[in-house]
Amino acid sequence: MAIQKPSIPKGTRDFSPADVAKRNFIINTIKNTFNAFGFQPIETPSFENYDTLMGKYGEEGDRLIFKILNSGDFTQGVKQDDWETKNTQKLTPQISEKALRYDLTVPFARYVVQHQNELIFPFKRYQIQPVWRADRPQKGRFREFYQCDADVVGSTSLWQEVEFVQLYDTVFTALNLKGVTIKINNRKILSGFAEVIGESDKLIDFTVALDKLDKIGEEGVIKEMIERGISHEAISKLQPIFALKGALAEKLTALKEILKTSETGLKGIEEVEFIAQKIEQLTLQTAILDLDVTLARGLNYYTGAIFEVAAPAGVQMGSIGGGGRYDDLTSIFGLKGISGIGISFGLDRIGLVMEELNLFPESLSNSIEVLCINFGNNEALQSMKLLKELRKLGKRAELYPDVAKIKKQMEYANKRSIPFVVMIGESELTKNTFVLKDMLKGTQKEYNFNEVNEALFQ
Amino acid sequence: MAIQKPSIPKGTRDFSPADVAKRNFIINTIKNTFNAFGFQPIETPSFENYDTLMGKYGEEGDRLIFKILNSGDFTQGVKQDDWETKNTQKLTPQISEKALRYDLTVPFARYVVQHQNELIFPFKRYQIQPVWRADRPQKGRFREFYQCDADVVGSTSLWQEVEFVQLYDTVFTALNLKGVTIKINNRKILSGFAEVIGESDKLIDFTVALDKLDKIGEEGVIKEMIERGISHEAISKLQPIFALKGALAEKLTALKEILKTSETGLKGIEEVEFIAQKIEQLTLQTAILDLDVTLARGLNYYTGAIFEVAAPAGVQMGSIGGGGRYDDLTSIFGLKGISGIGISFGLDRIGLVMEELNLFPESLSNSIEVLCINFGNNEALQSMKLLKELRKLGKRAELYPDVAKIKKQMEYANKRSIPFVVMIGESELTKNTFVLKDMLKGTQKEYNFNEVNEALFQ
Repeated sequence: MAIQKPSIPKGTRDFSPADVAKRNFIINTIKNTFNAFGFQPIETPSFENYDTLMGKYGEEGDRLIFKILNSGDFTQGVKQDDWETKNTQKLTPQISEKALRYDLTVPFARYVVQHQNELIFPFKRYQIQPVWRADRPQKGRFREFYQCDADVVGSTSLWQEVEFVQLYDTVFTALNLKGVTIKINNRKILSGFAEVIGESDKLIDFTVALDKLDKIGEEGVIKEMIERGISHEAISKLQPIFALKGALAEKLTALKEILKTSETGLKGIEEVEFIAQKIEQLTLQTAILDLDVTLARGLNYYTGAIFEVAAPAGVQMGSIGGGGRYDDLTSIFGLKGISGIGISFGLDRIGLVMEELNLFPESLSNSIEVLCINFGNNEALQSMKLLKELRKLGKRAELYPDVAKIKKQMEYANKRSIPFVVMIGESELTKNTFVLKDMLKGTQKEYNFNEVNEALFQ
Repeated sequence: MAIQKPSIPKGTRDFSPADVAKRNFIINTIKNTFNAFGFQPIETPSFENYDTLMGKYGEEGDRLIFKILNSGDFTQGVKQDDWETKNTQKLTPQISEKALRYDLTVPFARYVVQHQNELIFPFKRYQIQPVWRADRPQKGRFREFYQCDADVVGSTSLWQEVEFVQLYDTVFTALNLKGVTIKINNRKILSGFAEVIGESDKLIDFTVALDKLDKIGEEGVIKEMIERGISHEAISKLQPIFALKGALAEKLTALKEILKTSETGLKGIEEVEFIAQKIEQLTLQTAILDLDVTLARGLNYYTGAIFEVAAPAGVQMGSIGGGGRYDDLTSIFGLKGISGIGISFGLDRIGLVMEELNLFPESLSNSIEVLCINFGNNEALQSMKLLKELRKLGKRAELYPDVAKIKKQMEYANKRSIPFVVMIGESELTKNTFVLKDMLKGTQKEYNFNEVNEALFQ
């Protein structure tokens, strides 16, 4: 067989032990918080039926879903016409009945409907699994990446919104990522804006443009609105929206004036106010809650609260989390009237921010703590007995497998930054002792064989 | 859009919170042991390049690999001839450049070669990730399942074999799965057999048949050997192999006599003896080490030790783990002379055995420990303050989100088997107290608001 130069598909990544340690540090912190807040983990298959996924993410989404080629003779049963004309759009569902998960939301909706009789509502689940997208890879954008979602379905209570704000604060505090901003908005406020400027039928166009205020500025937004067919008269009424400033409570006061003629808009304000007041009384540890009336995040989907988390000031990074309330997630699979709310954490970006701010604990490593030098089979057997004790006591430890020169074994310990080395040579074997070398300090000391505890845990 | 009745592809599974809790219990136990023994985690992409996987698992394996359809116009560049004749074998690599991971071994070999300059050898890694096979689904066989492997590459030391026996013992002891048998064999012993019966050129046929002794008995094995063209004369010399009995040491003594004319065979015995003697001196906690000279496990692959773990006596189950030494894993990707040894754990089967023996801890649950009843917004706010404390103290706790009838909220607590319920009604709010109800005992007691510790941790 010809020798292959090894590589991996573009947009995918190998995770080294150091990479895994960092990602697990983030994931475990989030999991612990999810558990504390009463969320339970589920997992769904990596591929779903073609029809479960297609048509759920828009045309662009459909294109980005990875399809799995049917096994065996995939041409069987394919319409001859489509084959001859190479009509890929029509051929795809005929030669592919499965597709890789594109996100965790649609599989979750499918799960809730499929298992509705086993579930106890309100149902709070979290899910941390990879998803796949045939997107053009670029810096920070991959074709395989983990998503990390928590959702509650089966309750319309605004206390869920309050809990999710607290949850974000708890996670980012635990990660030592202080000063993130949890931006909040409400679909009803956006609807109210469209209503008061007289463009209710252009709600989507209006919000898609408004959502870009951060990136393209007021002028850019206005230009895009005009392009999208929003009237100059309507735009002239927008000034107060752009001018919203100050603390959350001040913004709410100004908003009430702007939206005073819109019942929907006032309802949205009321919801934000409820959340903001409860959070004020419960207090946050390190995060900041703020109202951002331009926030939309795929408006079609959200019906109430909309969340987005921004990295601490000074860090250039897109959102590191987001979510919101949706009222109709499961209806596509036949279950109506189930309100839900969910948030997600952007694991890759959180990792990049923590890297930039140097927030990963120094001790973060899966590497071993103690290496036993190998002086020969008799001595190694004695070392193996010591290792049994060390591992029982929770130390990560190993024997250098080969009887190599001491220098080579010490180099191995240095390269792997192993802090302690145990030496049991012929003389130690006879005396029933071991020598412990502190690789950082360069000091060493001899202990009786049964003094493992004294040597390494004091 | 038409409503879809939700389902998942055959051979795949949804994992409920209870399922995830059980699987994580097994995985975490194994991970802790891997870490203690100095193994480090890596992760590789779910899909690899088509050429990385194809041709590595035999014809049957190639057929069972899930291929991913190229995105966009997959017919572009396809040879017209192959298209017109619907030659699926020739078309597949033209319309699919990626395939889902079939196991963790080939991706690991690819990883080692690709990252050889960053790795420190001997390199000890573990990997716990799903793999996919287009196999016919049946009881206990899925199209998506987790594999769990640990390997060391870059050392020929037999201490690795000793360590893997200890590792198996440590994991199964920690899982409370006592009395598993770690069967050991050696490729060189099998080669020795073929040599002494004069059928060295039929080594594979010989061992494939011998491997079935457990299933089809001595007569079945002999019948299959005849079918595979092994001479009657050779088979007549097999009697001593079938007759091997007794303790490991006795078997070794008998083997030395059988294989006395085969240098290779004697080398194999020497290796097994080394491992057995060291294990005898180090002792095992709950597992039993035994020699099984019929064990082959895909002989092509292994060059030295071969391992397989059998469930405790009385449990009907195929092997729950296996592995062995291989000398040439990475050469297909261009890196020669790297000896390796690895083992795997059969997670699904271990789960089934633990289920059968009722070994999962009763406390195994991600469900919440404390539910706060919701009596209205003011009371709920006070409950939320209590929840903050509870969660800080490590309790999994939540507020019932809606102001529903007490009966409904209590039913929810019962259905979810929540052990404690906190009630803060109007009167408790005024008095700054809370009532804690023990749902199992049916008792309840009132505490001052700041007595969370006394109420729930004593």
